[in-house]
Amino acid sequence: MDQCDVLIKLLMEAVKQETDQKKSAEEAADTIPVGVSNRHVHLSQTDLDRLFGAGYQLNKMKDLSQPGQYACKETVTVCGPKGAIEKVRILGPVRKQTQVEILAGDCFKLGAKTQTCLSGELAGTAGITLVGPKGSVQAAEGLMIAQRHIHMTPADAERFGVHDGENVCLEVEGLRGGILANTIVRVTAQSGLECHVDTEEANAFGLDGTSRVKIWKH
Amino acid sequence: MDQCDVLIKLLMEAVKQETDQKKSAEEAADTIPVGVSNRHVHLSQTDLDRLFGAGYQLNKMKDLSQPGQYACKETVTVCGPKGAIEKVRILGPVRKQTQVEILAGDCFKLGAKTQTCLSGELAGTAGITLVGPKGSVQAAEGLMIAQRHIHMTPADAERFGVHDGENVCLEVEGLRGGILANTIVRVTAQSGLECHVDTEEANAFGLDGTSRVKIWKH
Repeated sequence: MDQCDVLIKLLMEAVKQETDQKKSAEEAADTIPVGVSNRHVHLSQTDLDRLFGAGYQLNKMKDLSQPGQYACKETVTVCGPKGAIEKVRILGPVRKQTQVEILAGDCFKLGAKTQTCLSGELAGTAGITLVGPKGSVQAAEGLMIAQRHIHMTPADAERFGVHDGENVCLEVEGLRGGILANTIVRVTAQSGLECHVDTEEANAFGLDGTSRVKIWKH
Repeated sequence: MDQCDVLIKLLMEAVKQETDQKKSAEEAADTIPVGVSNRHVHLSQTDLDRLFGAGYQLNKMKDLSQPGQYACKETVTVCGPKGAIEKVRILGPVRKQTQVEILAGDCFKLGAKTQTCLSGELAGTAGITLVGPKGSVQAAEGLMIAQRHIHMTPADAERFGVHDGENVCLEVEGLRGGILANTIVRVTAQSGLECHVDTEEANAFGLDGTSRVKIWKH
């Protein structure tokens, strides 16, 4: 190759790289990253005190994608009438009310019936027993399967043309792909753009923490 | 009420009952019952001999919905490089080739990577170790996640307007509802009409053995 050929080759590569980057940015703007939640527990300070001792403070293990939220070093045992699940991760910080988010498949193991609902909407949910190193808590309600949802900022909502509380469908590509109906948009100023599904939903749809989904307009 | 009123009431009830029955039959004709498969193993006679002893015969526990297929009393341990799953049910009768159908979530526990494919299409699937009471088998391939599919007879296929091998979408109602793409139609004369999904797909979509789904034409 003479000098001219080399120059043309370099130029072509640079143009291709820029086009690819632009294409990838356009695709990314249209899609939403996926976050996969395994079973976990949010605790009130009162319940944290009972399980781990008076005035106990949770110890952060790692930050989660939603600002201010973190996985803790601490775990509890979730106990139902028919069985128990050990080492269920606590997510911090503490909340007003204890909330135990399980997978649909856990209901059989625990011998507990519960319902699918949005985080915080615990009225009518089943009770559950939690056991920690210093004691146990029998919560009258708070056992739930999380309804899939998308966290986003007002700017994201404007970009996607959706609003807080809107019920949207998600499109998933791939051999196990399809459409997930009844996905709720949750808009707050402090959100990180992410669609939350649980482990069973992720496995059923071939999704993981590197996947992206689209809002499906039909 | 005089005799005439009583007669009219009885007549009205009879008409309503017949209308309801007709409506329910029409709805049933349009829908497909769901069968939920947990992880399970099909064995070749050679592998059955190695695991349970020479000339071993499987013992039926209960018949399955597909004619001639049954769950056996026997179970095996499925072992991967990182972990094992005990008491995995064997389904009979024996087949030409051993096939180990696991859930996507089992891959983490076993430390095994595998692929989603149709029953019997095992070329390129991962190997796996099975352990029984009389020995173990190291299968070179056969570990798979079953691709969802619908069993039906030629008469069913004609009624639904689909053909053997067709890739269809399924519509699921309910809070966890949506569309399942890439569901394969399998037509044989001896089929019982049933859509097979695995436990994770069922949990993700709020389905169980009493559910019915529809073929979604878009």
